[in-house]
Amino acid sequence: MENKIHETRMRVKYYETDAMAIVHHSNYIRFFETARTEMIRSLGYSYAEMEESGIWIPVLSVSCNYKTPAVYDEEISVFCSIKKLGPASFEIEYEVRNTADGTLHATGTSKHGFTDKNLKPIALKKVRPEIYDLFQKCLICEK
Amino acid sequence: MENKIHETRMRVKYYETDAMAIVHHSNYIRFFETARTEMIRSLGYSYAEMEESGIWIPVLSVSCNYKTPAVYDEEISVFCSIKKLGPASFEIEYEVRNTADGTLHATGTSKHGFTDKNLKPIALKKVRPEIYDLFQKCLICEK
Amino acid sequence: MENKIHETRMRVKYYETDAMAIVHHSNYIRFFETARTEMIRSLGYSYAEMEESGIWIPVLSVSCNYKTPAVYDEEISVFCSIKKLGPASFEIEYEVRNTADGTLHATGTSKHGFTDKNLKPIALKKVRPEIYDLFQKCLICEK
Amino acid sequence: MENKIHETRMRVKYYETDAMAIVHHSNYIRFFETARTEMIRSLGYSYAEMEESGIWIPVLSVSCNYKTPAVYDEEISVFCSIKKLGPASFEIEYEVRNTADGTLHATGTSKHGFTDKNLKPIALKKVRPEIYDLFQKCLICEK
Repeated sequence: MENKIHETRMRVKYYETDAMAIVHHSNYIRFFETARTEMIRSLGYSYAEMEESGIWIPVLSVSCNYKTPAVYDEEISVFCSIKKLGPASFEIEYEVRNTADGTLHATGTSKHGFTDKNLKPIALKKVRPEIYDLFQKCLICEK
Repeated sequence: MENKIHETRMRVKYYETDAMAIVHHSNYIRFFETARTEMIRSLGYSYAEMEESGIWIPVLSVSCNYKTPAVYDEEISVFCSIKKLGPASFEIEYEVRNTADGTLHATGTSKHGFTDKNLKPIALKKVRPEIYDLFQKCLICEK
Repeated sequence: MENKIHETRMRVKYYETDAMAIVHHSNYIRFFETARTEMIRSLGYSYAEMEESGIWIPVLSVSCNYKTPAVYDEEISVFCSIKKLGPASFEIEYEVRNTADGTLHATGTSKHGFTDKNLKPIALKKVRPEIYDLFQKCLICEK
Repeated sequence: MENKIHETRMRVKYYETDAMAIVHHSNYIRFFETARTEMIRSLGYSYAEMEESGIWIPVLSVSCNYKTPAVYDEEISVFCSIKKLGPASFEIEYEVRNTADGTLHATGTSKHGFTDKNLKPIALKKVRPEIYDLFQKCLICEK
């Protein structure tokens, strides 16, 4: 991944580890959420503001592939990027790496819809083109 | 604790353990919540129904004393009882024990208010005396 | 899914919900873990006993597709079944449904390896054939 | 609280909220853990390094008083300070506030022991006086 990729750094908490003394696998799904929240914030419009303005972004699916375990107090970087953008949905890719040496801990994806508060789909491109444009600027083109 | 004490059994999950290979201390606060939810259900009125009828029971304070650690897959019993009941608040006591041999893992307390959806206090005894009576029946008298 | 499918029932906790007033999507990954733990226990050998005997079953990957949201205090059933079994790994499929009316909340998968305590792969079929047989009995054949 | 008080800033995550659209009360106990981890790191010796050198700091008790709820995406500051230090244990006080306007969300305490890996108490002052001194420098004297 080269550009238009957002990096969020965080430190593994004790409560995120499990009895194997590694990060519990479910927490990577939470790391992904934190990373896309910060990526959206970097677009100039926070997810909290989106909800206030009536746009919700529920999760349609997630996946995660575990490579090497992250451990307590390790500084990790969650890289994320928008890979596909449709009029009412989009897809994100993630990589979780050790911040210092780049060791790959996990890769993943998530798919999201644009909906109203009642989780009814909305065509963001038509309804709120200025927000749709923000997502488009963040889109990674693969030629 | 002898009578009017409610027991909720549960099994420790892997995701509730930490790198010490014991239950993370924050999870006992969650066990307390599960136990009081089941205690309230046993009164004949679930907490979910209370919220629907406009009564919320936010947590005002919690405390927990850790005795011996609980471990993965252990069956534990969370005992809870109402120790004080005022017109607009109440207090609960908890004990977390190994179900099979009674080993004490933790003791704790929580204080709660009765409020409306906006977290504004309500005098349950006046507003909903039939629900107040349910709590009173569960109260443990200490003479 | 017809037979050799294990059902685990659980009630949605308040701490498993989020500000959308639905189960936070990351918690389905935890529901899957609980369900496969109970499925393995039903084979006659608990996961805790496996770890004690030197066999670890780390998660290699997970995926989850969200259909309709589950809510607070709802009773849900997590169905799981082994779909593939290799000499050193296996795959599980999941369905999360409302216990009473069968509404589908989510489907998912997970892949696991058999390893020693240091997460080094072991060929379970050779090393511990009696445990491998337990998994095989649980395998769903698709013809 | 004036000096020798350590501040840790964090942003409330979506997965830390509950169906009341506020931070779930159990998560303040986790915020406390993060805050004391950063306070200990600021002493020049991380908790991870302490564990590696054979010193564990289990939680003996916690308490939390909830004042006003924190909400999703809010930036909060967790202030913590060492209030008591004995040869084999210590106590910490916490305040959770909105970073921008100082609104008080919660106050709390925790007590900890110094132990070895098997949770057997050790007299830190005798066994590792240089680490004990670090804690003492951080102690807030109340005259």
